[in-house]
Amino acid sequence: MPTPKVAPDSSRRSETARRAILAAAFDLVGEMGYAKLSIEGIAAAAGVGKQTIYRWWPSKGALLFDAFLALTTDGGQGGALPDTGDLAADLKLVLRATVDELHDPRYDLPMRALHTEIVHDPALAADYATRLDGPMRELKKERLRAAQRAGQLAEDVDLDVAVDLIFGPLLNRWLQRTGPLTHAYADQVVDTALGGLRPREA
Amino acid sequence: MPTPKVAPDSSRRSETARRAILAAAFDLVGEMGYAKLSIEGIAAAAGVGKQTIYRWWPSKGALLFDAFLALTTDGGQGGALPDTGDLAADLKLVLRATVDELHDPRYDLPMRALHTEIVHDPALAADYATRLDGPMRELKKERLRAAQRAGQLAEDVDLDVAVDLIFGPLLNRWLQRTGPLTHAYADQVVDTALGGLRPREA
Repeated sequence: MPTPKVAPDSSRRSETARRAILAAAFDLVGEMGYAKLSIEGIAAAAGVGKQTIYRWWPSKGALLFDAFLALTTDGGQGGALPDTGDLAADLKLVLRATVDELHDPRYDLPMRALHTEIVHDPALAADYATRLDGPMRELKKERLRAAQRAGQLAEDVDLDVAVDLIFGPLLNRWLQRTGPLTHAYADQVVDTALGGLRPREA
Repeated sequence: MPTPKVAPDSSRRSETARRAILAAAFDLVGEMGYAKLSIEGIAAAAGVGKQTIYRWWPSKGALLFDAFLALTTDGGQGGALPDTGDLAADLKLVLRATVDELHDPRYDLPMRALHTEIVHDPALAADYATRLDGPMRELKKERLRAAQRAGQLAEDVDLDVAVDLIFGPLLNRWLQRTGPLTHAYADQVVDTALGGLRPREA
């Protein structure tokens, strides 16, 4: 069978289809939730054939993950954390912005879907760790290293544990709905993580 | 229509059926995961009719939740946290035991299923908060209050935030698979939460 000639704009058309599929996946999971999301439905909404999707993604979890990745790469958030020299103020700014984002109804269902798929799918979790959580975690650690150099963070703190203590509680409270997700809570998490639970000498 | 006479052992038979259903739900979700779990399958495994299950539980999420509750009420774990007078040592003991439990293959799938159902089902999350997380959280706060009285925990710390910082990271790391879940990590979380991220004066 002869290889078909590749038209000059073929890769551009592929890219257009890819973006349409990712946008459709993100929109649909927000409307109907992950359980009811189907490759058929995404294909119909994106105006492509089912086979096109199966050729590029092994599962709807993997497709949804790429939809998120496209969002963060295109949309901002990709840069370094703010560094005004005041670690507590900078962290509160970031966590308050996270609170606002988690309250945005456009993100709520898609982000819940992504997080629960990771829980059940080790391959997707590995992909998430490598491509999304890992790079974002590195940006957070970069800010914490600067704080260590400035004497605002203890030298002997494990930076992964520090990231878990600062950034984990918001995600947990949001996912498990264990309490109200507010700016006040974000501030308390930062102050408590920095100061510690043990009494400090006056 | 006449009300049927209730036989003397009718409530005992109900209780036997209820336990069989809860055990079957727990076993099956561990074997096949939540998505494939069906009321039909649970009914068959428990030797009861589907209608018996629907009469007692509105959804498979609610049923699974009760299966967990039966486990914790029957099985232990229900009591207060250890109090040897050494807060750090007691917390490490509890977190290390949690690490061991999370590595137990019998619990892995059922607990992942419960946690992801909560993420998608606000009614189940409310039930979880009232009946399981709430009472367990109260036991944790009781231990922290004792530490405050003993001068080992700052007076002005919000105890809910403290519980989130101490007990959240293990759950997160396990659910999101962001790193190895070890006794060493449990110890680090306790030491870092108690000591805080900021440098302490020597």
